Amino acid sequence: MIHRPLILISNDDGVQAQGIQVLTALMQRLGDVIVVAPDGPRSAASCSISPITNIRISLLCDEPGKKVYKCSGTPTDCVKLALDGLLQVRPNLVVSGINHGDNASVSLHYSGTVGAVLEACMKQVPGIAFSLKTKSQQCDFSPYEEVILQTASRVLRDGLPQDTLLNVNFPEVQALKGTRLCRIGRGRWMKEMEKVGEGEYRLTGYFQNLEPEADDTDYWALDHGYAAITPVQLDMTNYSFLNSQFIIHNS
Amino acid sequence: MIHRPLILISNDDGVQAQGIQVLTALMQRLGDVIVVAPDGPRSAASCSISPITNIRISLLCDEPGKKVYKCSGTPTDCVKLALDGLLQVRPNLVVSGINHGDNASVSLHYSGTVGAVLEACMKQVPGIAFSLKTKSQQCDFSPYEEVILQTASRVLRDGLPQDTLLNVNFPEVQALKGTRLCRIGRGRWMKEMEKVGEGEYRLTGYFQNLEPEADDTDYWALDHGYAAITPVQLDMTNYSFLNSQFIIHNS
Repeated sequence: MIHRPLILISNDDGVQAQGIQVLTALMQRLGDVIVVAPDGPRSAASCSISPITNIRISLLCDEPGKKVYKCSGTPTDCVKLALDGLLQVRPNLVVSGINHGDNASVSLHYSGTVGAVLEACMKQVPGIAFSLKTKSQQCDFSPYEEVILQTASRVLRDGLPQDTLLNVNFPEVQALKGTRLCRIGRGRWMKEMEKVGEGEYRLTGYFQNLEPEADDTDYWALDHGYAAITPVQLDMTNYSFLNSQFIIHNS
Repeated sequence: MIHRPLILISNDDGVQAQGIQVLTALMQRLGDVIVVAPDGPRSAASCSISPITNIRISLLCDEPGKKVYKCSGTPTDCVKLALDGLLQVRPNLVVSGINHGDNASVSLHYSGTVGAVLEACMKQVPGIAFSLKTKSQQCDFSPYEEVILQTASRVLRDGLPQDTLLNVNFPEVQALKGTRLCRIGRGRWMKEMEKVGEGEYRLTGYFQNLEPEADDTDYWALDHGYAAITPVQLDMTNYSFLNSQFIIHNS
């Protein structure tokens, strides 16, 4: 008997989104899958969790090699619930996405897609977040299938370094030029608040790449037709600052 | 005329929390303050934002040198709104807290207190998150006032390195032993999901320090009576992995 890996799948666009359905079908080629995803959109949920309200789940699909649950919580709640409530064994891999919208540069901090995988990373399960730079809810994901399968297979085989996940972003193209292993580029969102009434605002804005010429960043890869594969670590310590003379005396 | 710095204050426990009131009173000794904080608890909001619902604010207090707004959004929304909607000038400093509960080790990823300051950091405004390791909503913050004032004064004077914030955590003690400049310690939350009904769970659990002997971590400092001052950077790239042989071929 050949051992089939167990792959946990989540996202932040909700269980009904096209991206997670494509990702689920792809992962079924590699192993048994369990989907635990939000019951509706949770875009920009970051690593948020639900400490106050109870979290509800219900089973939507149970067939050989595939179970699908919807969950009332955030993407991170979904992964916590799967790892600590639903599954009797640890999954071999956690994947999240395919997000409708990129999570490159600083956008990864807001991303629920990445938040789900960060949770897996904190629990020592290798994980990959997949996102497509698009504004559409209906996309052709076929140009990215080969890279998704190869990246997942590679991580299933070799694992990832401790406390590290992969954040994979795709440009919206008919054919990828290739893949690039990238650092996170510097950027920021601009003009984000539109006043829509007295004391009422809505989020909007545009992304500004602060280093458009740097060809080693995730955003450069996206802008030039490549899939950006970015290794992301849990540890956010600025180690160079630890050697500074920043001393606070407590009198 | 002496220039008074402008200090923006937020938190994730909500505008009515004791911690933000103490922090506001302290910051008034250093400059003019504007408080933009959630209208209720947003614990564990991380860097989440509100892309779907409109964000409402209302002015609660307007007196010389002090304005207070409550906001229907997340901590990160509050900072975005202040920087991009309310303020005509950039603040000199953003502070968040004092959180009721620590945000050391991996807990910083879930923290709305830190999320607010990460947003400031993305907008190149120096920021500090303050948190107290306590389970109480009514605390004696007096043992920490001197460190808070000194840390804020120091950052107002010298700034911080690019894309870096300070995450300051206090142990619940009658007198601090001192302060320590720390890295983020490795840890994880355990047994986090308690089943409370059919398909219904609530978040619970306990924190496990994965390196309790390492005396250079934030959690060690807390456990030994010191204030932990941790420099946190936006860039989460695992640079050592960039030199690996992780190559994905797009056939």
